[in-house]
Amino acid sequence: MATLQDIALAAAINILSACIFFLVFAILRIQPFNDRVYFPKWYLKGLRSSPTRSGAFVQRFVNLDFRSYLRFLNWMPDALKMPEPELIEHAGLDSAVYLRIYLIGLKLFVPIAFLAWAILVPVNWTSASNTLAQSKATYSDIDKLSISNTPLGSERFWSHIVMAYAFTFWTCYLLQKEYETIATMRLQFLASEKRRPDQFTVLVRNVPPDADESVSELVEHFFLVNHSDNYLTHQVVYDANKLAKLVKKKEKMQNWLDYYQIKYSRNESSRPFKKTGFLGLWGNRVDAIDFYTSEIEKLCKEISVERERVTNDPKSIMPAAFVSFKTRWGAAVCAQTQQSRNPTLWLTEWAPEPRDVYWHNLAIPFVSLTVRRLIIAVAFFFLTFFYMIPIAFVQSLASIEGIEKVVPFLRPIIEKKFIKSLIQGFLPGIVLKIFLIVLPAILMLMSKFEGFISISSLERRSASRYYLFNFVNVFLGSIIAGSALEQLNTFMKQSPNQIPRTIGVAIPMKATFFISYIMVDGWAGIAAEILMLKPLIIFHLKNFFLVKTEKDREEAMDPGSIGFNTGEPRIQLYFLLGLVYAVVTPVLLPFIIVFFGLAYVVFRHQIINVYNQEYESAAAFWPDVHGRIIAALIISQLLLLGLLSTKEAAQSTPFLIALPILTISFHYFCKGRFEPAFIRYPLQEAKMKDTLERAREPHLNLKGYLQTAYIHPVFKGDEDDEEEEILGKWEHDGELVPTKRQSRRNTPLPSKFSGSSSPSLPEVVEERGQP
Amino acid sequence: MATLQDIALAAAINILSACIFFLVFAILRIQPFNDRVYFPKWYLKGLRSSPTRSGAFVQRFVNLDFRSYLRFLNWMPDALKMPEPELIEHAGLDSAVYLRIYLIGLKLFVPIAFLAWAILVPVNWTSASNTLAQSKATYSDIDKLSISNTPLGSERFWSHIVMAYAFTFWTCYLLQKEYETIATMRLQFLASEKRRPDQFTVLVRNVPPDADESVSELVEHFFLVNHSDNYLTHQVVYDANKLAKLVKKKEKMQNWLDYYQIKYSRNESSRPFKKTGFLGLWGNRVDAIDFYTSEIEKLCKEISVERERVTNDPKSIMPAAFVSFKTRWGAAVCAQTQQSRNPTLWLTEWAPEPRDVYWHNLAIPFVSLTVRRLIIAVAFFFLTFFYMIPIAFVQSLASIEGIEKVVPFLRPIIEKKFIKSLIQGFLPGIVLKIFLIVLPAILMLMSKFEGFISISSLERRSASRYYLFNFVNVFLGSIIAGSALEQLNTFMKQSPNQIPRTIGVAIPMKATFFISYIMVDGWAGIAAEILMLKPLIIFHLKNFFLVKTEKDREEAMDPGSIGFNTGEPRIQLYFLLGLVYAVVTPVLLPFIIVFFGLAYVVFRHQIINVYNQEYESAAAFWPDVHGRIIAALIISQLLLLGLLSTKEAAQSTPFLIALPILTISFHYFCKGRFEPAFIRYPLQEAKMKDTLERAREPHLNLKGYLQTAYIHPVFKGDEDDEEEEILGKWEHDGELVPTKRQSRRNTPLPSKFSGSSSPSLPEVVEERGQP
Repeated sequence: MATLQDIALAAAINILSACIFFLVFAILRIQPFNDRVYFPKWYLKGLRSSPTRSGAFVQRFVNLDFRSYLRFLNWMPDALKMPEPELIEHAGLDSAVYLRIYLIGLKLFVPIAFLAWAILVPVNWTSASNTLAQSKATYSDIDKLSISNTPLGSERFWSHIVMAYAFTFWTCYLLQKEYETIATMRLQFLASEKRRPDQFTVLVRNVPPDADESVSELVEHFFLVNHSDNYLTHQVVYDANKLAKLVKKKEKMQNWLDYYQIKYSRNESSRPFKKTGFLGLWGNRVDAIDFYTSEIEKLCKEISVERERVTNDPKSIMPAAFVSFKTRWGAAVCAQTQQSRNPTLWLTEWAPEPRDVYWHNLAIPFVSLTVRRLIIAVAFFFLTFFYMIPIAFVQSLASIEGIEKVVPFLRPIIEKKFIKSLIQGFLPGIVLKIFLIVLPAILMLMSKFEGFISISSLERRSASRYYLFNFVNVFLGSIIAGSALEQLNTFMKQSPNQIPRTIGVAIPMKATFFISYIMVDGWAGIAAEILMLKPLIIFHLKNFFLVKTEKDREEAMDPGSIGFNTGEPRIQLYFLLGLVYAVVTPVLLPFIIVFFGLAYVVFRHQIINVYNQEYESAAAFWPDVHGRIIAALIISQLLLLGLLSTKEAAQSTPFLIALPILTISFHYFCKGRFEPAFIRYPLQEAKMKDTLERAREPHLNLKGYLQTAYIHPVFKGDEDDEEEEILGKWEHDGELVPTKRQSRRNTPLPSKFSGSSSPSLPEVVEERGQP
Repeated sequence: MATLQDIALAAAINILSACIFFLVFAILRIQPFNDRVYFPKWYLKGLRSSPTRSGAFVQRFVNLDFRSYLRFLNWMPDALKMPEPELIEHAGLDSAVYLRIYLIGLKLFVPIAFLAWAILVPVNWTSASNTLAQSKATYSDIDKLSISNTPLGSERFWSHIVMAYAFTFWTCYLLQKEYETIATMRLQFLASEKRRPDQFTVLVRNVPPDADESVSELVEHFFLVNHSDNYLTHQVVYDANKLAKLVKKKEKMQNWLDYYQIKYSRNESSRPFKKTGFLGLWGNRVDAIDFYTSEIEKLCKEISVERERVTNDPKSIMPAAFVSFKTRWGAAVCAQTQQSRNPTLWLTEWAPEPRDVYWHNLAIPFVSLTVRRLIIAVAFFFLTFFYMIPIAFVQSLASIEGIEKVVPFLRPIIEKKFIKSLIQGFLPGIVLKIFLIVLPAILMLMSKFEGFISISSLERRSASRYYLFNFVNVFLGSIIAGSALEQLNTFMKQSPNQIPRTIGVAIPMKATFFISYIMVDGWAGIAAEILMLKPLIIFHLKNFFLVKTEKDREEAMDPGSIGFNTGEPRIQLYFLLGLVYAVVTPVLLPFIIVFFGLAYVVFRHQIINVYNQEYESAAAFWPDVHGRIIAALIISQLLLLGLLSTKEAAQSTPFLIALPILTISFHYFCKGRFEPAFIRYPLQEAKMKDTLERAREPHLNLKGYLQTAYIHPVFKGDEDDEEEEILGKWEHDGELVPTKRQSRRNTPLPSKFSGSSSPSLPEVVEERGQP
């Protein structure tokens, strides 16, 4: 096991690397030619323009003001300066609330660490224990400060139990306050927000097939009947996946064309050539510019044909629609109620923001959803439990003894003190980290397969899965598999009911491992985050090869977004570690506090200057965050129970059983009290906003506003001039839509003929010709 | 252990006793003076009148038509004759669907029994096993037909696994069909039903306190604003618990008065006296008739004062109200949506039927509900797990060896073959039964404390608890505790992960016990049910002592109701037993089939002729029933898994793991597909009914219809003549209600003065004077 020296060394290295990252960042960010990488948010907001316009040529690229280099940590106070309401205005509620997760980490662990160091550390330190001597596993100095140092059956365990109660109450108090605050923030945000199409719109899925009427007619009739006072208009959903693919391909071709054109303009003597085969490695040699021009032309035609097909073929209309209402009240009512006898048809839910819609999944029928969920559940189970094998294997190699066993000739090198410390302090953390980088993409694919219809819900689902995975593999995996390989024989042959005991014994032993993990992943990782190496490189490559106009440069920026699906579970792991070790090994707490503090500043900076959220869910993720912190709390309580049950402190452990029960009932209380604010939209709010709006803008043309809000992104961008025309067309449609239905069942196929000439099909999506 | 002979004897006894019950019933029911006990339903429907009107004096009481005695099982085909639609018309959907539970038991187990006897019994019988010989526990002949007879590691276990799959698929198929049918029946029932107040009404709870306005005004303003197009009227809820108590006391006094008056009229020579002290045992001797007359007079005054107080004191108005809407659509919308920002205020839900309301719980605030739920959860845990101790103790006494140990001098009697069989066949079942009689009352109290607001939900909750209790104590308790006391030493010192093995081994051994339980509880118990001993005795007592008029006789009838909270969990236990033993010991299945068949006929008879449901929930209990059968299925799969894991059939058991997973996902599918039909009211249905009604009765005075629907029962019965007046009063109220609110926060207490003279308080509840 790692000693105090190992940890000190690892800490020094990590602090150093963090400092280096910050220094490099400080230098890079004040160079004007990196401006678009480190401040893209401001460019997107139109509040900052390229600094390359004025000044000497060199000054366009390199900052020559040496004073600015001296203030290299200046960005930190800058990041903290912006007040929260302004931050919400600037970056949206999602980002602001995301930052509050770090803040709650600080609020939670600073008092806990203070208490633990004031009471538990002295209690542990002054215990004269013979436990450590007896144990076969090796212990380090850190254990003198941990619960391991308290002898079996000691009365001192009462202090740990009292502390467990104190920590639980503090956590619950804090969580409840925070939930309340965020629910209020959400409702205020929704109330103060300006008009948004999703406030008036409901997504209807599983429109039943009908032989006599097209989907569009069916939707219109259904809502004219069942929401007669409120229905305004609707928008059918086209299956434009193929079209989207073609458009993407065209964009790629356009990039290549730009690249060769720039290349040619720089060196006009030789026209660029390329080979048509795989990756340009073989095939006919052709003039690149001509080739791509003709390819793009060909694609344009294909796109226009496909566009025509999608618009006119009734089969490309999916059985889903965005239905808009005259009032927010009407939409709130429709979203919260069941429409049809058959609860699997006419499913309504709040429409996500237009940019939040995941178009691909809109047409999945109900039965298929159940099956998909089952498949993914099973797949996730296997992923979680068979991923453990390689991690455990590599970790066993990554211990000194493991390496010596596998490659004995390396022994002389490894046995050197410095390298030994390095391996023990670093390697296990890095091994884990590499494994975890591959994962989010897989989990995201799983969520997509499962059929969620908004990007925000996809991310939330992936985040839950990632957290579960982290819990089983990083947390339990490191504790059990690690010590399982250490304690080998004494361990493997025990019955399952020994597991709580095993974890109990292993937890204090694993403190040093988790400390090194926190330093590598938390400290250095967060510091590396701010450097934004990948976007930096990509931007400069694009800037060099593709950018012709200022607009191109705009597009070359890739600010990215927070990435809730990876970021949040990572934070949650620190909550888990902090809560589990708070009572057991309080030494770990300062490391976690440093992580939360550092991450808060870094992410605040990133959110203000860099990230550009793809969507705004108004903090819809908070119930998940809250639930996972509660879960971590319960896990910590159960593990403490397991640990104390091995300590022969029989008269004190029963007092711990009440804790998880209380925590669970606290969770249910919070769920009932606050969660509806994140799922439903209270009618009172809706009515209030409707009334206000009617008073302010009595002659608002809502139909015009909503008409084109929910159009598949591939149809966007070239229908602006068309809007007027459509509106004119719509104005003529009366409230009464003549049904073409002749009979319910006997005439199965006339729709083929009537559907194609449907008057209520909006023509927005018609082919507009290419620019 | 019981042998085949024991079982045959027990079966003979139980069949005999069932026959005796039926015979007695057949004789009693055709006696005219029992007519009101055995056919009260028809009296309540007004379709049958007292047979005492005509004929000779003797014939009024005794049936002298001897031919009718010969056809003593005639009631059985009669009970089966009525077709289901007529049954729904006659007894309501709840009863009809309740009968379907028995029917599903038959549909489920008849094919399973057929398959099991055709395949598993021969497979087991022809296995030459040495397991039985090796085992220390004693086995009986029945085990030759069970899975115990198959030797360890045999290939024959494949047949059991295939059968487990077949049974699972059959159960799921049947359950899905049934869920679909019942969902359709429910929606049809709701659609075809005549107008009912609860279709238009929503119960609002947790109306926030307001300093400026009374509850009634507050409710009116809130709904006029937030449901402006649909709000019709509302009815505040009075805290009339004390009043109800007084009324009840008065009724009791009236009964005594009647008793003494009848006594006096029969023997006019001596006026009856009574003592005023405890139970009439001591105290002053007074004239009974005078005493009760004056007592009743006193109570009348008290009641009138209390009535006045309740009506006029704003403090007796609870923060809850029944809000009625103009259309079913409006009510459906309000019931399914969230009203206020704070999700714990203005909670809306469908109003239960007026007769289904449990008035006592209407005022419980949200926080208190969470706490109550926690308290009850803990209490129920203790009740369930500490109830086991006396059962296990008594059962250990009730075995031959146990009795001989405790009272050794009884040995000569017990060792006699007949008595030994009797004890082994009967006693364990009876012991259990006695324990279980006390329970439902406790569970009902728990549910009441938990705060449910309708009798139907109280019964559903009690039923779930009762089922859980049955599962832990009757099922697991009998299997584990029973065999624990038998196998004593070899058993108690094993670690917890041995439990699945233990249950697995114990299940086949316990088959005989459960067979005897089925016969005592199922066969004889059901046959005793039809006799209705308790109501019979009480009716005749009342008839003799209290009945003066025909109306009194009407009131003396106590038809009772099905008692979902005790009946349904009992059926579920048979489903559990049937599914668990279907693969293990198919011998048990015929006993269960007999139970289901018998119970179906008996309960169909009772529902047609006797029971009078207190409320109609339109089969709202079906999701519970479905869920519990699914739970039984999963338990049976897990236990089979445990059993086979002890059989060294390692290569075949993994195939069983897929079963519970499939079953769980089937459950989720059904939940999504059908459950909403039992919780929500689809807007389409509501709209359709509204439209129909408007077309049929365009000038319906809905307000008048709804005005008095939700009045506390103690106010009912004397306001009929008042209705007109109220309606007149209400017609004058415009849509605009002037608010008395002066400011939001600064004037805290004017409500005391304004509240008492509120014009919108209905005066229905005023004291009308006594008859």
